[in-house]
Amino acid sequence: MEAYCSMKAQEVRKLIREQVITGQTSGMATGFTQANLVILKQEHALDFLLFCQRNPKSCPLLDVTEPGSYRPAKLAEGADIRSELPSYRIYRDGVLAEEVNDITDYWEDDMVGFLIGCSFTFEAPLLAGGIPIRHIEENRNVPMYKTNIACTKSGIFEGPTVVSMRPMKAQDAIRAIQITTRFPDVHGAPIHLGDPSLIGIDDVSAPDFGDAVTINEGEIPVFWACGVTPQAVAMQSKPSIMITHSPGCMFISDRKDSELSVL
Amino acid sequence: MEAYCSMKAQEVRKLIREQVITGQTSGMATGFTQANLVILKQEHALDFLLFCQRNPKSCPLLDVTEPGSYRPAKLAEGADIRSELPSYRIYRDGVLAEEVNDITDYWEDDMVGFLIGCSFTFEAPLLAGGIPIRHIEENRNVPMYKTNIACTKSGIFEGPTVVSMRPMKAQDAIRAIQITTRFPDVHGAPIHLGDPSLIGIDDVSAPDFGDAVTINEGEIPVFWACGVTPQAVAMQSKPSIMITHSPGCMFISDRKDSELSVL
Repeated sequence: MEAYCSMKAQEVRKLIREQVITGQTSGMATGFTQANLVILKQEHALDFLLFCQRNPKSCPLLDVTEPGSYRPAKLAEGADIRSELPSYRIYRDGVLAEEVNDITDYWEDDMVGFLIGCSFTFEAPLLAGGIPIRHIEENRNVPMYKTNIACTKSGIFEGPTVVSMRPMKAQDAIRAIQITTRFPDVHGAPIHLGDPSLIGIDDVSAPDFGDAVTINEGEIPVFWACGVTPQAVAMQSKPSIMITHSPGCMFISDRKDSELSVL
Repeated sequence: MEAYCSMKAQEVRKLIREQVITGQTSGMATGFTQANLVILKQEHALDFLLFCQRNPKSCPLLDVTEPGSYRPAKLAEGADIRSELPSYRIYRDGVLAEEVNDITDYWEDDMVGFLIGCSFTFEAPLLAGGIPIRHIEENRNVPMYKTNIACTKSGIFEGPTVVSMRPMKAQDAIRAIQITTRFPDVHGAPIHLGDPSLIGIDDVSAPDFGDAVTINEGEIPVFWACGVTPQAVAMQSKPSIMITHSPGCMFISDRKDSELSVL
């Protein structure tokens, strides 16, 4: 793992393609932006593109492939989204059907790939800013929750906004708002802080995705819109087929995190 | 009052000098930056300048007069800080001795004036951003509290950081952090939010300065460092003489609020 940190994105993607790496990508190819993946058939692509356009906090689009193409030209020319993520989830009619390491055999000529900004990108500058991140300290996946904040509907796509949560001291929360505001393409500023029940989260110790983390006394839970939202939406909207990355198993792009900072 | 809103700073200062206006300046000469005032004798000026330099969140300096001069050259050339604020407080040995409308007779040849940024400057863009401000809605003075956050000492000057408090919904608090971050010279981002007891405020309904305001269910109190801090410090540090503006009776400068935005 240590060795993967200092590799370039292209080198890590090669190891993923060769299935040397089949698990989470957090921390690999430090400085290179990682992205969430959603693949749909062309019949749903316009609706989904509109869904992202209408819900930019949870679905900030970094790249969309040409219909039929598995090349994310903007994020990494020549990369192949069919084999260069460690693990994929295949949803059929809204139900998780399979989890595989390569989707080349599942690719169809009318599929479109959507690459969506991921909060991994802003965690590096948070850490660099001296803000501890609990789920990293506790070596867990970030806790994620379905909220009562409805996404704006587009065609068949509708559902709740999913948020990721990081507990912090108030001063760190204020600084984290400043830092993440610089990154509008990777969820930007939080959408809520404080009382979880105000956004429909009844039990903060029971996340819908990822793992629970410790919230210490005097800490405030801070909630960011999350790129897992499209998966929650897929489950609810039931397209005939939708392929996503497995949680934490992201696409590592050739773009630098620093390029995504607007300040 | 309505008429004063649309006046230029110079016109309002004239009415103040003539003692037509002797009360609060909130909302007057809209768009022109208002400032807190502290006047000290030269023997304390270096220590106080260092105090401000070390405590920039509570004491952001907009202008300092030349020793002996009552002209704030940077904020309003030709203005006279001895007569162009509606009301002044005179502290002798840390005790409020008098409150007067003109300090020309109190001015000494070795006095120095310090003009310090005021949160009035960021309230206009908050309102413009659609964020309700409770103390304005309730027609009260902003509530201010002494905290347990000690200022960094300089010479005789030491004491607690004073904060102003505005209760907000979480989403508005996040937006308010972004907006006020643009204004580092008028206290900038908040220094705390949430549980008041974490910064030593036992009873949020009993402010040390200003008036209490309603905090509705689901709202978070948000705390900004406050330009009243030097007054709290004066009381504790007891210089032989210190003159300040009376609460809410500010110096209206020729500089525009918009000039103070770094973004």
